[in-house]
Amino acid sequence: MADMRNPERAVPQPESIAQESALAIICGGGSIPLAVAEAVLRRGRRVVMFPVRGWAERASFESYPHHWIAPVQAGRFLHHARAEGCRDVVFIGTAVRPPFRALRLDWTTLRLLPAVWRSYRGGDDHLLSGVARIFEQHGFRIVGAHEVAPEILMPAGPFGSLAPGARDHADIARGLDLLHAIGPFDVGQAAVVAANHVLAVEGAEGTDGMLARIAELRTRGRIPTPVGVGVLIKAPKPAQDRRFDLPAIGPKTVVEAVRAGLAGVAVTAGSAVVAEPAEVATAADKAKLFVFGIADDRPQ
Amino acid sequence: MADMRNPERAVPQPESIAQESALAIICGGGSIPLAVAEAVLRRGRRVVMFPVRGWAERASFESYPHHWIAPVQAGRFLHHARAEGCRDVVFIGTAVRPPFRALRLDWTTLRLLPAVWRSYRGGDDHLLSGVARIFEQHGFRIVGAHEVAPEILMPAGPFGSLAPGARDHADIARGLDLLHAIGPFDVGQAAVVAANHVLAVEGAEGTDGMLARIAELRTRGRIPTPVGVGVLIKAPKPAQDRRFDLPAIGPKTVVEAVRAGLAGVAVTAGSAVVAEPAEVATAADKAKLFVFGIADDRPQ
Repeated sequence: MADMRNPERAVPQPESIAQESALAIICGGGSIPLAVAEAVLRRGRRVVMFPVRGWAERASFESYPHHWIAPVQAGRFLHHARAEGCRDVVFIGTAVRPPFRALRLDWTTLRLLPAVWRSYRGGDDHLLSGVARIFEQHGFRIVGAHEVAPEILMPAGPFGSLAPGARDHADIARGLDLLHAIGPFDVGQAAVVAANHVLAVEGAEGTDGMLARIAELRTRGRIPTPVGVGVLIKAPKPAQDRRFDLPAIGPKTVVEAVRAGLAGVAVTAGSAVVAEPAEVATAADKAKLFVFGIADDRPQ
Repeated sequence: MADMRNPERAVPQPESIAQESALAIICGGGSIPLAVAEAVLRRGRRVVMFPVRGWAERASFESYPHHWIAPVQAGRFLHHARAEGCRDVVFIGTAVRPPFRALRLDWTTLRLLPAVWRSYRGGDDHLLSGVARIFEQHGFRIVGAHEVAPEILMPAGPFGSLAPGARDHADIARGLDLLHAIGPFDVGQAAVVAANHVLAVEGAEGTDGMLARIAELRTRGRIPTPVGVGVLIKAPKPAQDRRFDLPAIGPKTVVEAVRAGLAGVAVTAGSAVVAEPAEVATAADKAKLFVFGIADDRPQ
């Protein structure tokens, strides 16, 4: 491995360089970027954090090498990532698509503005694909968080002590079918199904917002099923580029699912991230909620 | 016509009896039950209102013959409807599916409880089909509001002064495709699409709740498209029994669409009701919002 650091003594393979170079992590909100960083550090690879202003929490990055950036601020990122010797870039965490007026466009981005604007108008996936092209044109490689730290992914089967029952499995199947049907529309990654009744489909409000809605409708007697019936189902969109947008759950998901009066949370195994897994399992067991990894083998 | 009232002097055709008999209107919330009643009265037919407690507004029924009933309170309805000489029954207005504990089960309903319970667990459409069977077994005929008062239906084309533009038509098409895709899941009848981006799919919260959500997300900068872009699209579910569940818009829909910052409202023509049409057109023109009847000719 020492040879890799001296290009005159060996011609390293691209894969090996990638392993050696520091990993740039562009961090959205939530705790998942930190979980990815910790997993990558445990594997012996250096990380450089690029928390995004307005998305990432201020206090979390002091203990890592880091540079704050603004959304779609390509030039500043490229400058610092090069200086830090990064080549691979991970996008991870909650990204709130900003109002266009809030975008801080630097010179590099401005030159690319027509392409970014077209992407921006085309929906999340296209925006991110457009951004990815910018990075790739500048010699960086976008990798998925699940590629550099596969241990963050949801395993198949029950995650805590409880497992779904027959009715829950029927709700899970219906939710997966629904998410599959709306996949082509680039809408939410989640739905709530209770006793075969679709209570909510995630839109711009996000998963936590959708669960809060169920909780609120329940207090007004608008949810027909009793407390303890119903499942939050999360799955990636069929055409989703998982390098940008892995579905994720964490302790907050469990808390919100409990408030919504659900029986459990089901997430596609191997294609969704669990933030703070120990806390998720503890919170789920305490609330008598199941958290379940779905082995989803339907064709994508 | 006078002959019809004396069964010994003529054998009337069933259709003619239906025309002569008073129309029972089981009234949910909102102003549409009153609009239907007015339209039927203008056609010279007597109406008897059966406002449902918890759904219909208390003050609205004083000027009509009326009997308050509780949800799924079949016996009380059957008794009064027979005494009033009704044979045809219309269900119309906003129905909030009640928590099971709130159902007032009388003796007739109790005998039918197993079937009602099965219906209740199967989703809205099945609940209503189950209730319809009860009425039909007792000699009543369920008719659609659109059959007794077709003038309440949304016409094709612009409803006020404004018409959708090219981008709006693209959003409408995408919304219709989405609603078509989720039709088999017995979920909402409405969605919001802005610049090709699906912002919301209606669930248990209803159309007004969904629009209020868009307005709230917009104040938090979570809606990527500017004010004046985006359409509320409403269409009946493909398998929907229109005798029970016609999509509807009214002045409140326009107000909520304005608050949500949309360009307009599009509703399938001929299969959705407009409550207070003059007020809808006035409110839309004042807010510079289009209200448009979609000639939806896709196969159902």
